[in-house]
Amino acid sequence: MLSRKIFLKLFAPHLSDNQADTDRLLAALHTARGIVPEDIEVPLLVMRRLPESLRTADWRVTAAVGRAAGGWRLQDVEPGDKTKRHFGLAVDAGTTTIAAAVVNLISGNIVAVTSGENAQAAVGKDILTRLQSAEEPGGLEKLRSLLVESVNRTAAKAAAEAGVNPVEITAVAVGANTAMIHFLLGLDPRYLYREPYIPAVNAPGLFRATDVGLDVHPEAAVYCMPGVGSYIGGDAVAGILVSGMHRQNEVALFVDIGTNMEIVIGNAEWLVAAAGAAGPALEGGIVKQGMRAVPGAVARVRIDPLTHRVTYTVIGGEKARGLCGSAVVDAMAGMLKAGIIDSAGTFRDGREAFVIVPAGEAAAGTDIAITQQDIKNFLRSKGAVSAAVETILASVGLLPHEIGWFYAAGAFGEHLDVKAAVATGLYPDLPRERIVVLGNSSLEGARRSLVSEEARRELGAICRRVTYCELNVNAEFMPRFAGSQFFPIVDPRI
Amino acid sequence: MLSRKIFLKLFAPHLSDNQADTDRLLAALHTARGIVPEDIEVPLLVMRRLPESLRTADWRVTAAVGRAAGGWRLQDVEPGDKTKRHFGLAVDAGTTTIAAAVVNLISGNIVAVTSGENAQAAVGKDILTRLQSAEEPGGLEKLRSLLVESVNRTAAKAAAEAGVNPVEITAVAVGANTAMIHFLLGLDPRYLYREPYIPAVNAPGLFRATDVGLDVHPEAAVYCMPGVGSYIGGDAVAGILVSGMHRQNEVALFVDIGTNMEIVIGNAEWLVAAAGAAGPALEGGIVKQGMRAVPGAVARVRIDPLTHRVTYTVIGGEKARGLCGSAVVDAMAGMLKAGIIDSAGTFRDGREAFVIVPAGEAAAGTDIAITQQDIKNFLRSKGAVSAAVETILASVGLLPHEIGWFYAAGAFGEHLDVKAAVATGLYPDLPRERIVVLGNSSLEGARRSLVSEEARRELGAICRRVTYCELNVNAEFMPRFAGSQFFPIVDPRI
Repeated sequence: MLSRKIFLKLFAPHLSDNQADTDRLLAALHTARGIVPEDIEVPLLVMRRLPESLRTADWRVTAAVGRAAGGWRLQDVEPGDKTKRHFGLAVDAGTTTIAAAVVNLISGNIVAVTSGENAQAAVGKDILTRLQSAEEPGGLEKLRSLLVESVNRTAAKAAAEAGVNPVEITAVAVGANTAMIHFLLGLDPRYLYREPYIPAVNAPGLFRATDVGLDVHPEAAVYCMPGVGSYIGGDAVAGILVSGMHRQNEVALFVDIGTNMEIVIGNAEWLVAAAGAAGPALEGGIVKQGMRAVPGAVARVRIDPLTHRVTYTVIGGEKARGLCGSAVVDAMAGMLKAGIIDSAGTFRDGREAFVIVPAGEAAAGTDIAITQQDIKNFLRSKGAVSAAVETILASVGLLPHEIGWFYAAGAFGEHLDVKAAVATGLYPDLPRERIVVLGNSSLEGARRSLVSEEARRELGAICRRVTYCELNVNAEFMPRFAGSQFFPIVDPRI
Repeated sequence: MLSRKIFLKLFAPHLSDNQADTDRLLAALHTARGIVPEDIEVPLLVMRRLPESLRTADWRVTAAVGRAAGGWRLQDVEPGDKTKRHFGLAVDAGTTTIAAAVVNLISGNIVAVTSGENAQAAVGKDILTRLQSAEEPGGLEKLRSLLVESVNRTAAKAAAEAGVNPVEITAVAVGANTAMIHFLLGLDPRYLYREPYIPAVNAPGLFRATDVGLDVHPEAAVYCMPGVGSYIGGDAVAGILVSGMHRQNEVALFVDIGTNMEIVIGNAEWLVAAAGAAGPALEGGIVKQGMRAVPGAVARVRIDPLTHRVTYTVIGGEKARGLCGSAVVDAMAGMLKAGIIDSAGTFRDGREAFVIVPAGEAAAGTDIAITQQDIKNFLRSKGAVSAAVETILASVGLLPHEIGWFYAAGAFGEHLDVKAAVATGLYPDLPRERIVVLGNSSLEGARRSLVSEEARRELGAICRRVTYCELNVNAEFMPRFAGSQFFPIVDPRI
C-alpha cells in the first residue's frame, strides 16, 4: 500500500499519562501497525493541527500514512473512523492521451476511469518536438504545467465520476514514458535524446503531491513507476509486469504501440527492449482523418472482398467524424484482402484514396477516406515494429517462429481486431489464444503499484533485468526498417 | 552525523553504460557509503539541477546527504571535492538569550559561537506571558517569526565570525525548552500550560530548514532535541546527557537556572525531573538593574566584610551599565557575609538599597544598587530551586546529604563564583570538586547531536527514563517553597 489509513482510539492524557500529542499518536501507530516512530516523518503542517484535531475528535482519529523514502510520512489525521473511504489515483500519462483511474484502496478495484487529452499536443504532437521546445526559455516549465494541468483535469473528472473528493486521494501512481516523466517532474530532458541518451532519472521514487503540483491530498505519496532508459519508460516496464512475460519460460514479444512504440522480447531468463518513434501515431494520428476512439469515431470497418462495399460502425452511433486506430487497421486488412492495394501498399487501380464514409453520411459532409499517404504512414509504423523485432531477435540469435506469446499493450490495442492486425503484419502470425490484448497495461501497472508493495519491488527488479537495445545506433536496424515496410503476402485462405 | 558529505568520481555515461543521472549518483553513494538508494529521498529541486550539475563538474561531485525519518535526503550536489568544508549549526534557543555555534562537522569542533537576544522578549519577558499571547489572533505566528528571526540573526553572526556562508550549513541541532520548541515550529502551545500539561510534541524528529524558516542550506536537516514534557525540554535533557549523571552510580543533582529552572535528580538507575518558573530570571533579570553578561555588565563584586567597601569588575572594562547574574550572586553572598542582610534577606540597618556602583562611576550617572525587592526576588528563585530539590528527594526517599554530585547548567552558571553560589544556598554545600559547572549544556548537547548518532539515540533513551514530577500539582511543594526563601545561616569560618 502506497498509503494506509488506520483508525486509532487513543487514551486521553491525564496527569499520570502526560505523553505529548504527536508522540502519543506515533506510539499508537506503532502498536497498531508496527511502524517505528523514528521511521515516520510528521510534516510541520500536520503537527501544527494535531493538538486541536485530537481533542476535537475526542482522541478517536484516523491516521493516514504514506510511503516515503526509507519509511513513512504522516499524511493526515481525521476525526473518527474514516478508514472506509480510502482512495488512490492511477495515471497513465501518455504522449497523446491521459488516462486516470480512481482506485478504492480497500478493495484494490477501480471505481472510475476516464481519459482526456494531453494538452502538451498544442506545443507538439510528437515527443521530439516537445523535447526541442523544452530547451527554449520557459519551455520546460510550460510543458510541465500543461501536463500537470492535463493530469489534474482528467483526475478531477475521474474523481467526480467516482464520487470522491480529490483531497480523499492519498496515493498516486504514474505510468509514463521517460520523456513524459521528465515533463511531469520538470526535469531537464536535454540529455535524454542526445547520444548517449541519458535520462535525469530512471527510478524517480516518491514525491509529495504538493511538490509535483497534483490536485489531490497535498501530502499524497506520488510514485512514478521506474523506467529502463530514455526510450523504455515506466509505462513499458508496467507492461512487462502486467503481461507476466518476465516469469514465463517461453519467449514472448511485448509491443506497446502508442504515439511511440516500445518492444520487449524475453522470458524468465532474459529481457531485451527497444523503442522508437518511427512513424506518426497509430493512436488516431496515423491517417489524415484519424481521431481518438471517442464518440463519432469509426471503430470498425468491413470491406466486402468481392463488391468492395464498405460497412462500418461509429462509436456512440452518431454521424462519423473520423477513423480511430482500429478502423484504420480494419481498413488496411480489408483493402489488402480485397486486392485494392498490393503488399507494397499501392492502390492497384492507381486511385488516390479509398472512401470509407461517403460525404453524405459524414458529419462534416466530406468523404472520410484512406489515402495513399495514409497507407505509407501505416507501413512505416508497422515496418518500425517489424524491424525492431527482427533486430532484437537477431541480437539474441532467435528466429521469429520461436516467439511463443504476443502481448499487445496500449489503448490502441484495446479496440483492435486481432485478425486484422495479424493480416496487416502489425501483429505476428500466432494462434489466436497466444495473442493477448493487455489494454492499458501502464494504467494497470499503476493500479497495482498503489495497492502492492510487491508490485513496486517487482517493477524495480524488472528494470534491473532489461537490456536496452539502442536502435538509433544499431547498424542493422535501418536496412531492416527499409525492408519491412510491406504488408505480408496475402494468404487467400484467411 | 546529521549530514554527510561524500566526494564521488562517477563514470561518465556512454552507450553501453546508460544509467540515468540520479540512479548513477545513488548507486555511487551506495558503493561509497552503503546507503541504499531506496532510503534516500531526492528532492525535486535537487533532481532538476542534477543533469547540469554532473556534466558541468565533469562527473566529479560532492554529494551532501542529511538524515531524514527512516533514511536520508539528498541535500545538494556540488562540483568537485567540497568535503573539506562541511558545517553544522548548534542552537540553544533560550527564553531570553539565543546561543548559536557553527560547528566544523569534520572535526566536530566549534568554529565560532555567538549569542543574541530572543526578540520574543518584546511580547513578554517570561514564558507564561508569551504562551498567553500565542492564543491571541496571529499571536503564535508573531512569536514564531520573532524567534526564527532571532535564531537567524544569531546564526548569521556566528557564521560571519566563522567565515562560513550560511548555505554551507547542512545540519542544525536545536536545544530549547518545550515552549520555545513550540514557538520555533509554530505548534499550538495551548495545552502545554493547562492541566494535564500536554505538549504538541516531545520528540519533534527531523525537519527541513526551509520548512522551519532557518536561513541556512534550504535542505539542511533540522533536529530538535527531544524533551520529557511541558516543563522539561530538550535543553534539560541535553544537560543530563552532557553531565553524564544518567550513567553514574552516585546520585547527582542537575540544575539549569535560566529564565526557568529545570531540576533533575538521579543516577544510572533512576531519573526524576521537575521544573518551575518560580521567580524572575537569574539571567540578568532578577534585579532591577540586571543585564546579560555583555560589555558594560558588572561581572564580579567583592564586599569587604569589615569596611563594607565594594570592589567590582566590568566586562569589557567600560563604565558599568548594570549587574549580570554572577555579580548579583557575589553581591548577595558579600552582603550576607558582611552582615549587611540577615538570613531572611532583610537589611539589618533598615536601608532600602545597597550601592554596588556609585552614580559617579556608572555609565548612566545613577547608582547601581541591590534593593530589598531584588533580594526578595533572588530568594524566590533560590527558594524555588531548594523546594523543588526537597520535593523530589522526599518523593524518592533520599536526604539532601545523599547527593554526591552537583551539575550547574545554563549560561548563568558559567560565570558564577561557585563559593558565592554555595554561600547564598543557590548551590548545595558540597566539596568544590563535586560541583561541576557545565556551562551551556543545551548548546553542547546540540553540538553532539550534530556529529553523533549515538548522542541522539542517548537523548531519546534519557527521555524514556525520566520521570516527571509535576510541582504544580504536588501538595508538598508550596509549603516547602514558602519555607525555603531564606539564605543559609552564615558559617563564620567561610
